Amino acid sequence: MITKNEIKFVRSLKIKKNRIKSDQFIVEGEKIVDELIDSSLELVKVYSTSSKYESLDKLYTKISKTNLLQISNLKTPNKVVAIFKIPKSGEIDFTSQIIALDNISDPGNLGTIIRLCDWFGIKDLLCNTETVDCYNPKVVQASMGSISRVNISYLDFKKLFIEKKLNLVAADLKGESMNKFSFQENQIVVFGNESLGLSPEIKKIIKNRVTIPRYNSNYDIESINVANSVAIILSELKNRSTGR
Amino acid sequence: MITKNEIKFVRSLKIKKNRIKSDQFIVEGEKIVDELIDSSLELVKVYSTSSKYESLDKLYTKISKTNLLQISNLKTPNKVVAIFKIPKSGEIDFTSQIIALDNISDPGNLGTIIRLCDWFGIKDLLCNTETVDCYNPKVVQASMGSISRVNISYLDFKKLFIEKKLNLVAADLKGESMNKFSFQENQIVVFGNESLGLSPEIKKIIKNRVTIPRYNSNYDIESINVANSVAIILSELKNRSTGR
Repeated sequence: MITKNEIKFVRSLKIKKNRIKSDQFIVEGEKIVDELIDSSLELVKVYSTSSKYESLDKLYTKISKTNLLQISNLKTPNKVVAIFKIPKSGEIDFTSQIIALDNISDPGNLGTIIRLCDWFGIKDLLCNTETVDCYNPKVVQASMGSISRVNISYLDFKKLFIEKKLNLVAADLKGESMNKFSFQENQIVVFGNESLGLSPEIKKIIKNRVTIPRYNSNYDIESINVANSVAIILSELKNRSTGR
Repeated sequence: MITKNEIKFVRSLKIKKNRIKSDQFIVEGEKIVDELIDSSLELVKVYSTSSKYESLDKLYTKISKTNLLQISNLKTPNKVVAIFKIPKSGEIDFTSQIIALDNISDPGNLGTIIRLCDWFGIKDLLCNTETVDCYNPKVVQASMGSISRVNISYLDFKKLFIEKKLNLVAADLKGESMNKFSFQENQIVVFGNESLGLSPEIKKIIKNRVTIPRYNSNYDIESINVANSVAIILSELKNRSTGR
C-alpha cells in the first residue's frame, strides 16, 4: 500500500527544490528503471503495478493503476515509478575531452546530450548553474539510462574558466570550420543556449570558436538544434582523435 | 473579429484528417510566421494581437489575447497564429542525396530532421506513409521555418524501393562503419523508428547498412536519438562529398 504522504512526496519530486531537499529523483518505465536498478545508483523505492520487483523486498510497494496515474508524470504511465538517490558528482578528468553546456534550457535536449556523451565515451559533462537540472524527470526519461554512466557537474563557468587553464573552444555560428579545427586530447567544447547562443560573459572568456559547416547557400536557415550540434561535433572529434 | 466558427476551424487543424480535408495547416509565433509569409507558401489567414500584420489587409484579423489562447496550441502563445495552404509535393530529384524516414513517430524529431536537411542542402525528404504528418503543429514549430524549404513527400516505401532502382543504404546498429562507407552522389539514407528501428519489410529490401561508430566499450548504451543520427550521417556524407 502506498500512503497519501508517499503519493504527495513522489509528486513533489517534479520540483527541483524538493529534489535538492530530499536528494532524490524519480524515474519511470520498466526499461529505464531496470537499467538504473542494475547501475551504481542507490535505489530508494520502487512503486509498481507489476509483481516482478517483489525480490526487492522492502524497497518495493505494489500499487494500483489508479495510484500509478497519481504519481506518474507521463501521459501513459508504464508499470513502474522508482526513486533513486541523487549521486554526488565525481571528480572531473580535465585531461580528457569534455562537453560543457552554457544555459541549455530544454530538458529533452539535455537528456539526448547525456546519451550522446555516453555513446561517444565522454566521461564528464559540465553544466553551468543556469542549465536545466539533469534530475528533472523529462531529462532523466530522455537520457534513457545514460544518466547513470556520465559524470554530470554543475559549476560556475566564469569562475572555472578563469581560475583553471583549460583548453576551451566554443561552438558558434561564426568560427573556424569544424573540418579544419584541430581538436586536442583535453578539448572542452562549450555549447550555448537554444535560442540565444553563448552567454556574453562566456563569449568574452573563450576566444576559440568552431563552426559546423552549412551546405546551403540559402542563408534563411540560421542554426540547427543544439543536441544535433553536439552530435556532429562529438562524432567529428572522436573520429579525428582516433585517426578514423 | 474572429467568429466562433473560425475559432472552431483553427482548432480543428490540430487533427490530421481536418488538415487533409481543408488542405491547410497552422503555424504560431512571430518569427516562424514572418518567415513563412516571406516564403513560397500560400498564406490563408493571420490572426494576431499585434497590428503589425495590418498591411495584409483581408488576410489579417486582429484578435484579443483571450481569442489567441482559444486558438493556440502552445502553453504560452506568442502574438500570432497563421494558416497556410499545404503545398503540393514537388518532383523528387533522385540524382541527389536524399534522407528517407521509415515510421518516425515523434513530431520533435521530424521537425529537427527537416531543419537538418535544410542546413545540409538536402532538397528531398522522403517519409513513409506511417511517419508522423509534417504539417502536425509540433513538427511545424520544431522545423523553425525550414518546412517551406525542403520538399517533403509521403510515399509507399515498399513500392518505391522495389519499382525504382535506387542507391539505398539503411542506418542500423549493425552495419559498415560510417567512416568506411562510400556515400554516392545519389545516395538515399533510410532511418527507422525511434524505438523499433527499421521495419521488417524495409530490412528485407535494403541490404546495405551503415553504422555510426560507438566510442564506448560499455555496451549498456544501445542507441542514440534518431535526429542525432541523421545529423551525424549528414555531416559526414556532405563533408566527404565535397572533399572536406
